[in-house]
Amino acid sequence: MQGLESLGERKIIQIIQQQLEVMPGLPLGFGDDVSALKLEGDKLLILKTDMLVDKTDVPPGMSLWQAARKAVVMNISDLAAKGAKPIALLVALGIPRGFTEKDIKQIAKGLNSGAREYNTFVLGGDTNEASDLIISCAVLGTCHPKMLIKRKGTRPGDILAVTGNFGKTAAGLKILLENIHVPQELKETLLESILMPKARLREGLALASSQVVTASIDSSDGLAWSLHELSKASHVGFLIEKLPLATEAAKFAKAHGLNPTELCLYGGEEYELVLTIKPQFWNKALSAIKNVGGRLIPIGKAIKENIVKLKTEKGSIPIEFKGWEHFKTTLKEIQE
Amino acid sequence: MQGLESLGERKIIQIIQQQLEVMPGLPLGFGDDVSALKLEGDKLLILKTDMLVDKTDVPPGMSLWQAARKAVVMNISDLAAKGAKPIALLVALGIPRGFTEKDIKQIAKGLNSGAREYNTFVLGGDTNEASDLIISCAVLGTCHPKMLIKRKGTRPGDILAVTGNFGKTAAGLKILLENIHVPQELKETLLESILMPKARLREGLALASSQVVTASIDSSDGLAWSLHELSKASHVGFLIEKLPLATEAAKFAKAHGLNPTELCLYGGEEYELVLTIKPQFWNKALSAIKNVGGRLIPIGKAIKENIVKLKTEKGSIPIEFKGWEHFKTTLKEIQE
Repeated sequence: MQGLESLGERKIIQIIQQQLEVMPGLPLGFGDDVSALKLEGDKLLILKTDMLVDKTDVPPGMSLWQAARKAVVMNISDLAAKGAKPIALLVALGIPRGFTEKDIKQIAKGLNSGAREYNTFVLGGDTNEASDLIISCAVLGTCHPKMLIKRKGTRPGDILAVTGNFGKTAAGLKILLENIHVPQELKETLLESILMPKARLREGLALASSQVVTASIDSSDGLAWSLHELSKASHVGFLIEKLPLATEAAKFAKAHGLNPTELCLYGGEEYELVLTIKPQFWNKALSAIKNVGGRLIPIGKAIKENIVKLKTEKGSIPIEFKGWEHFKTTLKEIQE
Repeated sequence: MQGLESLGERKIIQIIQQQLEVMPGLPLGFGDDVSALKLEGDKLLILKTDMLVDKTDVPPGMSLWQAARKAVVMNISDLAAKGAKPIALLVALGIPRGFTEKDIKQIAKGLNSGAREYNTFVLGGDTNEASDLIISCAVLGTCHPKMLIKRKGTRPGDILAVTGNFGKTAAGLKILLENIHVPQELKETLLESILMPKARLREGLALASSQVVTASIDSSDGLAWSLHELSKASHVGFLIEKLPLATEAAKFAKAHGLNPTELCLYGGEEYELVLTIKPQFWNKALSAIKNVGGRLIPIGKAIKENIVKLKTEKGSIPIEFKGWEHFKTTLKEIQE
């Protein structure tokens, strides 16, 4: 019998889904980033749960306040990708025995800060004893049915875009794990990216209102992973013409002999949105995003051929379907 | 600095609440059993999260299927106590490394069975690696604002009632933990009570429709605990005139030299509803419950004096404010 480490998170999710009866008439497929539900009123209810576990989601150097805030951001980010507005959060905590009153306070303050940052509130929760620190959030949001952005919907020719640059989080994580010496200013930017992730909620809501996005996903598992998920959902491929590599990540890669493409594609923990837009609506999308102070960076286009590839000087090379996956990778393993 | 074991779950919840900003205009207070929210439409949205952790919530002898089903029941039970109808569940899982594909299937089947038993569906979720088995459910329900039953609202003179007898779960747990020999038929009943708990959803919905319940709570932390919580919420006391001791629990107590009152009051894991009703509406409540095949057992009355006490042949004795509390008690400790 296979153990979990050989199964991996995606296979586990598949096994679980096969055992579950599906509620009829759902507005969103079972494999999308959130669940949607039509009750009374015009709007859809959007539901999402995402669990933070310290040993896989909290790098050394991240405070309890930051970890709790991150647990909120993880959940908000998925709503952002769908264009849904968060309303309220529930939080179930698993707390290790050694934790003190001060620790609990830091966690609670982090939860509150995360919630308020995205104009929502923690509405209730549950506390338990557990061996790991577990922060399991569930978020409720709403969305107008016409504005909900699915993971599926990309057509060949659509412009592929992201809401920010990539690679800083992978560099930041490397600094935390390997205690690498980096000039102060660069270090601060890189660490901030991993310790204080931001959900692109304003961007997601603005894009949803503009109704020009054909598909969207967040990039918490890495850019490469998100591209492959989008590709799978819509049976299209992607040609990446320009990698959205952050300057700071490029600097870090150069100074430490790392491959910048790897940092950019396979790092994860970025919480940017990865989305596709019909070319004729590009300007509309761009102005929607600019109105809320965000960025929209075109990085390539959707193609018919079912492959995700990167244009280079020597021709195009395939981008692997890999990224951060629980059970197959853990922070502890990286540290070992 | 105090560790968690000396703080206890209730103190921890208090510390957390003090750090959280409260959403304005909530229909239900922060300390009630669920959270409620008014969006569009006539109905309230009801939200609840409750986390199952194997080392505190799963006794030896409980299968993974049963544990997963129980995780659902724990959540449904709180909605039942408020008269809210569950609509959809989210489940975040923490899974230990050693688990196999077969284990995951059993968990998923248990989740599905629990959900379908209460006419709801698992809508989405998240899987993670964790040291303990963690099943963190969040449930969304609805309730007509007039029908929502709060924890607060009891007035002196109200009849105190429960939806079933108590004591079997404590006996069942003792059998599992201490491997006590018990006649087969009795054993089956006692084990069923702890391994296959039922949420009193039909009863809760029927009582809510009748609009005669002044306050309600479920009894997952034990009868004594629920009585004290109701007492605290409404600043009343309770005089228990007749303990709702299950015959099987009485038999078990007699055969093993145990105190039946202790089994009945302080066992926990019962998931019955504990509620109060205005005397003039007793018959209406009783017929509402009987219509759905449930039971309503009067056990005493609310009194002005802020004390919870039990009538005995030798006069009344106080019932302690104690029950199952995470961090102060764990199954492992009981086993040791």
